[in-house]
Amino acid sequence: MSEERLIYLPLGGAGEIGMNCYVYGYGKPGQERLLVVDMGVAFPDMDGTPGVDLIIPDITWLKQNKARIEGLVITHAHEDHVGAVGHTFEALGVPIYSRAFTANIARHKLAEYGIEGKAVRTCSPYPEVTRIGPFSVSFVPISHSIPESSGLIIDTPAGRVIHTGDFKLDTQPLVGEAWDPELWTEISKGGVKALVCDSTNVFSRHPGRSEVIVGPAVEKLVEEAPRLVVATTFASNVARVKTLAQAGERAGRSICLLGRAMRRMIEAAVETGVLKDFPKVVQVEDAASIPRESLMLIVTGSQGERRAASAQLSRGKFNGIELKEGDLFLFSSKTIPGNEKDVIRIMNQLSEKGVDVVDDSMGDYHVSGHANRPDLETMQDVVQPQIVVPMHGEHRHLRAHVGLSEARGRQGILAVNGMMIDLTGNAPKVAEYIETGRTYLDGTVQIGALDGIVRDRIRMALNGHVVVTLIMDEEDAPLGEPWVDLMGLAETGRSHVPLVEVLEADLSQFIGRAGDKTLTSDDKLEEGLRRIVRQTCLNEIGKKPEVTVVVSRLS
Amino acid sequence: MSEERLIYLPLGGAGEIGMNCYVYGYGKPGQERLLVVDMGVAFPDMDGTPGVDLIIPDITWLKQNKARIEGLVITHAHEDHVGAVGHTFEALGVPIYSRAFTANIARHKLAEYGIEGKAVRTCSPYPEVTRIGPFSVSFVPISHSIPESSGLIIDTPAGRVIHTGDFKLDTQPLVGEAWDPELWTEISKGGVKALVCDSTNVFSRHPGRSEVIVGPAVEKLVEEAPRLVVATTFASNVARVKTLAQAGERAGRSICLLGRAMRRMIEAAVETGVLKDFPKVVQVEDAASIPRESLMLIVTGSQGERRAASAQLSRGKFNGIELKEGDLFLFSSKTIPGNEKDVIRIMNQLSEKGVDVVDDSMGDYHVSGHANRPDLETMQDVVQPQIVVPMHGEHRHLRAHVGLSEARGRQGILAVNGMMIDLTGNAPKVAEYIETGRTYLDGTVQIGALDGIVRDRIRMALNGHVVVTLIMDEEDAPLGEPWVDLMGLAETGRSHVPLVEVLEADLSQFIGRAGDKTLTSDDKLEEGLRRIVRQTCLNEIGKKPEVTVVVSRLS
Repeated sequence: MSEERLIYLPLGGAGEIGMNCYVYGYGKPGQERLLVVDMGVAFPDMDGTPGVDLIIPDITWLKQNKARIEGLVITHAHEDHVGAVGHTFEALGVPIYSRAFTANIARHKLAEYGIEGKAVRTCSPYPEVTRIGPFSVSFVPISHSIPESSGLIIDTPAGRVIHTGDFKLDTQPLVGEAWDPELWTEISKGGVKALVCDSTNVFSRHPGRSEVIVGPAVEKLVEEAPRLVVATTFASNVARVKTLAQAGERAGRSICLLGRAMRRMIEAAVETGVLKDFPKVVQVEDAASIPRESLMLIVTGSQGERRAASAQLSRGKFNGIELKEGDLFLFSSKTIPGNEKDVIRIMNQLSEKGVDVVDDSMGDYHVSGHANRPDLETMQDVVQPQIVVPMHGEHRHLRAHVGLSEARGRQGILAVNGMMIDLTGNAPKVAEYIETGRTYLDGTVQIGALDGIVRDRIRMALNGHVVVTLIMDEEDAPLGEPWVDLMGLAETGRSHVPLVEVLEADLSQFIGRAGDKTLTSDDKLEEGLRRIVRQTCLNEIGKKPEVTVVVSRLS
Repeated sequence: MSEERLIYLPLGGAGEIGMNCYVYGYGKPGQERLLVVDMGVAFPDMDGTPGVDLIIPDITWLKQNKARIEGLVITHAHEDHVGAVGHTFEALGVPIYSRAFTANIARHKLAEYGIEGKAVRTCSPYPEVTRIGPFSVSFVPISHSIPESSGLIIDTPAGRVIHTGDFKLDTQPLVGEAWDPELWTEISKGGVKALVCDSTNVFSRHPGRSEVIVGPAVEKLVEEAPRLVVATTFASNVARVKTLAQAGERAGRSICLLGRAMRRMIEAAVETGVLKDFPKVVQVEDAASIPRESLMLIVTGSQGERRAASAQLSRGKFNGIELKEGDLFLFSSKTIPGNEKDVIRIMNQLSEKGVDVVDDSMGDYHVSGHANRPDLETMQDVVQPQIVVPMHGEHRHLRAHVGLSEARGRQGILAVNGMMIDLTGNAPKVAEYIETGRTYLDGTVQIGALDGIVRDRIRMALNGHVVVTLIMDEEDAPLGEPWVDLMGLAETGRSHVPLVEVLEADLSQFIGRAGDKTLTSDDKLEEGLRRIVRQTCLNEIGKKPEVTVVVSRLS
């Protein structure tokens, strides 16, 4: 067991879409030097994570092995790859490596935590090689829905790993580097041990479509629009933002960017030189005075986010601009599962204002940034890896991706978060199971997903909350009656008497009957009072609420 | 103003998908005799209605005008049309009219409330006419995704209204009546005042597809499946259930229906004669002993409902059956917006069991039950109404449907829930705005959507809940310290001391400084304590919780 080995350990993104975080290690078992790839976030929702601000990877294992970590490499600047760098930097304190555009975004995230920009080292693309511990890392340009997305060559004494990052095979991505099969053939020709590969679109049967097809459809739409045009897309999709802006410019419209993320992304793209020839934009203060038929807004909030520009515009005046009858609103985006209701709410609010809403439901105004099934096959054919390790996908995606590999005669291994895989030998094998999960950023505090805090919130939301207070005197006799407060529960139930009164009567009766053994024991009192509350509520209103019992003893 | 008039008043379904409830009236203003069409439900979700069991129409206006209601007509047996008959019957107490299959379902719903079946009168289809107050009503067969869906002819002295109900133009619906353009031409030939028309699919550009196309694809899939096959669809889509069962039968498999709703619907369809030649089914007790390659389960839960058969099977053994590697699970359904995450959860759990999941993402295994845009145009061409009144749709659907009508030179009017429309004259006009909303069935109690109860639950879920108890003695001096309980909040924040302790210290300090004016006033004390809790929590954990303050005064 003292042989050196090459390990792969996903801590996020494998078994889910979002929150990407992968670890590679090389060295003797338990002493491997570690390289972390990506540190992304996932987004909370009311269903499972009410009140939570952000979901970040559980880095407990990384903290325990902090001394072994050589560096953190970020493949691209999407939130689910870079979003948690600020929240985890202090705990890990390792140097961060990325290309220029990604570095620009990462530095802004670190700045929010007061961390200096030099924590991020900017790397040039392949053939530049960065030595990070036992790993030689190169950033290999590949197309995606954000500039400078990169696959990684990770060379180790046990062989070459190619980690694709998120990608699509787009030969005309408009902004950023195109898919270059010759380049990828070149980096693969010496033999590739493992291809660790994006899986999100494995169920899409057709080859992916190029960013270039969106332009003509958008141009036609904008050209024909009689009044104000508003378009929303993912702010980070700089190519799309450019396509939208150019369509506006060609139709003789002034372009105005609305929403902080939108301006930030374009700024970063211009600063780092990845975006050129972007149409001149007008400031929002000046936009209101431009005739609406000569104006186009490009705004944040394609996912229905409640505080983003789209939602604000759908509700009323925003930055002095108000949408009106006959305006056009284009969603040049897809709706991520879970966001449907928020997006639909905005569409209906816009409809109430008489705005014509156009979305991508017929496939005209958006293309995906990920490789579809045939593209994944192409990638395997180009790289010819010994092993395929599907990453970034739910279990069903990873499983289908393994199936696809095996159908082509390649080894695949299904590794979900926490499964440490030994890639050293000819056949990959599970080396260890690491306990891992998710961490919630809740207000300003990081809490564990299993701490029970969010579970309690969900329970209160589903069941309501009853607070019972009871004062016991120095002789362990009740001083007055139990007192009941309701939160989130019907005021009156079956007996048509206020629920509070029914509860207080039943609790008083219980206290009146209780013996010394109960009255002297806080636990027994609480248990008894809680039981009565739940039983009475069930009878009266058909619900069993959460109950907090506060017994105060005078002494 | 003493002229008699014909009014239309949607109380549900207009401005939303689901919870259909429409009112027609004829008579002198304010004295119209009323006919209610449909009494459906909508389904709650964690986002907006946590803990709620069912959403039903707000029938306040109907109760106020109870004496004027002549009857309730149900167009078809989908939950969003019939689901609230039981919950509202006692309050309205009017006779219910429907065709046999729908009546069968409605009677079961009434029976849950102990209401006798004779409350529902079974009607035969057109040309039978049922006189209901000043209305002559006929049920006109039309195709939809449930048997015996019917449009309504509503004849009044002010002219004929055609209320389509939910429909599609399917000439081969497999079960139930086909779309019959000659019949619909016949009922329209005397002139139609208003076409009140389903709008849900107005954004679908292509003509709707027939139920008949699903069969061959499903047959091929089932034929090729090597192990157990499980298929789920909407239980009420009896034609689909039959298609699935026949595919199984042709592949030599025994068919077993799993889930109460599935068995109930098939039973109702057989009892009422709408379903014939359904393959023989085996009981679930016998299914476990059948070799898995010779068995097909047809199960409930296509929307990911947590207690339905699909979810149970995805989690583990259900009724003695356990899914395994190589089994096939078919979703012959679409996912209703908002249910995506629940459906995806099941797909991933199935994937973890090694089950191959197939869904309709490529359009092979499901067709919609609603009329698409070209079908709506056909309907208008057949009926040639004077006015089109779009119903059943969100605001954006209704608006697009009005636009479609106007583009074809017909008057359309956009009426959302609560807008009473006068249809008497040549041009429809808004007669009145009725205050209406939604009622929540919460446990066994009906609460108003605006009662604040659900709002409080959402706040607790987002912000957590802090309970402060304080005892004041006979002299209005605090007896001991304030006591704090947390629910749904982090235990420790910025100062690394338990949050409870920080709060109690800050509250004690406040109490110590408080003057008599505060100490003698419950309101001032509560306000002060609440303010401190929120401020301290904001400092410590970055959240402002909900606060319940209980001040007990000894006297």
